[in-house]
Amino acid sequence: MAGIITLTTDFGIRDAYVAAMKGVILSINPRAIIVDVCHSIEPQNIVEAAFIISTAYNYFPMGTIHLVVVDPGVGSQRKAIIMKTHSAFFLAPDNGVLSYIVAEASATPVKESPYPTPKPELQKLDPAIRAIAITNPHFWLQPISPTFHGRDVFAPVAAHLSLGTPLSKFGKKVTRIYTFPIPRPYRDSEGNITGCVLHIDALGNLITNIKSGDLPSDQISISINSHHVQGLSLFYAQSKGLTALIGSSGYLEIAFVGGNAASVLNAKTGDKVKVSPRTPWQT
Amino acid sequence: MAGIITLTTDFGIRDAYVAAMKGVILSINPRAIIVDVCHSIEPQNIVEAAFIISTAYNYFPMGTIHLVVVDPGVGSQRKAIIMKTHSAFFLAPDNGVLSYIVAEASATPVKESPYPTPKPELQKLDPAIRAIAITNPHFWLQPISPTFHGRDVFAPVAAHLSLGTPLSKFGKKVTRIYTFPIPRPYRDSEGNITGCVLHIDALGNLITNIKSGDLPSDQISISINSHHVQGLSLFYAQSKGLTALIGSSGYLEIAFVGGNAASVLNAKTGDKVKVSPRTPWQT
Amino acid sequence: MAGIITLTTDFGIRDAYVAAMKGVILSINPRAIIVDVCHSIEPQNIVEAAFIISTAYNYFPMGTIHLVVVDPGVGSQRKAIIMKTHSAFFLAPDNGVLSYIVAEASATPVKESPYPTPKPELQKLDPAIRAIAITNPHFWLQPISPTFHGRDVFAPVAAHLSLGTPLSKFGKKVTRIYTFPIPRPYRDSEGNITGCVLHIDALGNLITNIKSGDLPSDQISISINSHHVQGLSLFYAQSKGLTALIGSSGYLEIAFVGGNAASVLNAKTGDKVKVSPRTPWQT
Repeated sequence: MAGIITLTTDFGIRDAYVAAMKGVILSINPRAIIVDVCHSIEPQNIVEAAFIISTAYNYFPMGTIHLVVVDPGVGSQRKAIIMKTHSAFFLAPDNGVLSYIVAEASATPVKESPYPTPKPELQKLDPAIRAIAITNPHFWLQPISPTFHGRDVFAPVAAHLSLGTPLSKFGKKVTRIYTFPIPRPYRDSEGNITGCVLHIDALGNLITNIKSGDLPSDQISISINSHHVQGLSLFYAQSKGLTALIGSSGYLEIAFVGGNAASVLNAKTGDKVKVSPRTPWQT
Repeated sequence: MAGIITLTTDFGIRDAYVAAMKGVILSINPRAIIVDVCHSIEPQNIVEAAFIISTAYNYFPMGTIHLVVVDPGVGSQRKAIIMKTHSAFFLAPDNGVLSYIVAEASATPVKESPYPTPKPELQKLDPAIRAIAITNPHFWLQPISPTFHGRDVFAPVAAHLSLGTPLSKFGKKVTRIYTFPIPRPYRDSEGNITGCVLHIDALGNLITNIKSGDLPSDQISISINSHHVQGLSLFYAQSKGLTALIGSSGYLEIAFVGGNAASVLNAKTGDKVKVSPRTPWQT
Repeated sequence: MAGIITLTTDFGIRDAYVAAMKGVILSINPRAIIVDVCHSIEPQNIVEAAFIISTAYNYFPMGTIHLVVVDPGVGSQRKAIIMKTHSAFFLAPDNGVLSYIVAEASATPVKESPYPTPKPELQKLDPAIRAIAITNPHFWLQPISPTFHGRDVFAPVAAHLSLGTPLSKFGKKVTRIYTFPIPRPYRDSEGNITGCVLHIDALGNLITNIKSGDLPSDQISISINSHHVQGLSLFYAQSKGLTALIGSSGYLEIAFVGGNAASVLNAKTGDKVKVSPRTPWQT
């Protein structure tokens, strides 16, 4: 069975940690198709990892198995979980790293809050989501290292899952897992929307948490770090310098055509972004 | 059908953009074999991407599909094309990024010019090359993002192509595409050859645009940024310090044994390199 | 035959060198499964590459073929070898890069020495290890570049090996290859153990050459660069700040919880690490 297994970690590309995980997977399922999502997550940045996997998972085939191993609590009492949504499996430490996935797979709205400081809290899962605490050591590498469950727990469990082993074999059902409130923009009484920078990509584009549906129209003025952008472009090459557009994940994005918006604006994750309806006398 | 699809982009390795493309490809052709060529092209550097893919494509099997997505004009009126040579398929924005491929696949010589400033211009294709403008939205992801055709246009079209869908299904034939003149060295009346640095690799080696066939002999003197190298080495370990040799792609290369030539020479892409026949009294 | 081939190089991720190797492999064995171990080895750092492959190879299935191409002597008279242990094949220049593999696959103890300055010397191989000098050009790409045997020698030979070509076809048996003495800690008359930093991983953790079996107990005091750590943690989250634990490869590791130990300690590879039995009046 040629299951697809994706990997998202903060292990970087200078070590053999990721390769060891791949070796373990291929030792159990030689036909597994392994795809790297990202290994350059900032060390231990659960919020960044949660965002990154949320931008990739829904482009993979039904039944894909996603491993997300950003795991500062490895070896502690934190649970390791398998989560199954209608479309995919997710293996991760129970530390909030699946928060966006939970939000998108839940029929009922999940807790939201303005950025920053998303703190993971134990939350009841929507019935549409099934979760298992990985507790059956039968499927783990032995001896298990208390510092590398990616290799010794998550990789072999993912490989067995890709071979068709039923979820229930890996451990017992859980109905509550840790998630952090999704950072959502808020609207004041004058119609201004205040959101924040969720992520800065490698090209320096600022991806905000404001979705196109949040915007009153494209007649808007956008402020960030004392800079202003008027209106929305449809694509990068339509304008010059600082520009705003709806990016490929559906979020309002601030870019600098031919340059790096993050550098130009001295911006970082969490910076506030304000969107105002444009008044007629604004240019 | 287990077609091979290679990826060359400027998306970097910190985001999930490349993974999303792979997910799209595997959703359409689960047996596709995807190979990364490079994702660390300098953002929007069409000339660098054109060079990088030119050093890799001819080592892949016949019929391999190469995606080259360095695409500052994404979303604009720039065409997206499929180009078919006698050995491979290339999918790319029509912005010059296939210039070296066109040059190598053309039976008749293409336009050349001294470096720098290769500017893409619309050029008639050699009859040995077939090209299609990708216009049939049937094969695209919907809704299409105006900022990420890599995921929504190029990836699904490549996947369908790998399944054997005929070229003509994707759009109409084009006979002219944008290419930039290939930067070529020139020879003065005294037999000196002036070329330039085409590319600096990760080890700091300077790859020039001077081919071994351009050299009068190996009795030469090479100048760059006020430094001089006498003669050619056969391989790195043959000399110490600054050395010149014919690199693995057939170009004259300047290296610093045990160090980084680019740092030592403070060199950058486009820097002039002069090769002179060595006079008898030179050491 | 879907053989697994892993790649460890110092080629970096900005060029197409690695992709060219993959193209060559897939041209010969389209069903080969290629796994990147690491391409960010410090240029020409044989000792680092030797360590990195040693942490990964034993997680791969029996019969996996590991290419390790860190090859400052490429093109010179240095041999290219295939080494076969009871579990795997290794292809590499004969320059010491397989030293850890040789040590682990040898029934009799190999030469050890305190760090630093491991210098490769010609050593007789244990009978449990079979080695071949790659001398038969029949399996190489032609013309062969004197600067890129990774692409022109190692990649095609690995691909043919993955198809089942017998070892003896590639060249003649050798009984001695270059290895460097494995850096091992030493114990003084007072029971103190002095080792060194073998490797610094991308998260800044210092991996030492001291194995858990070398330690008198976990009642120890650890010194490095004028800093001290008392006792061992079981996992990272068990403590705060500077901490010591047995890492996932079985070596004593010094970490900084929530930070980067290498930065905090200004540490580099080769730095001395001293472990002392803790006296009762130490806290």
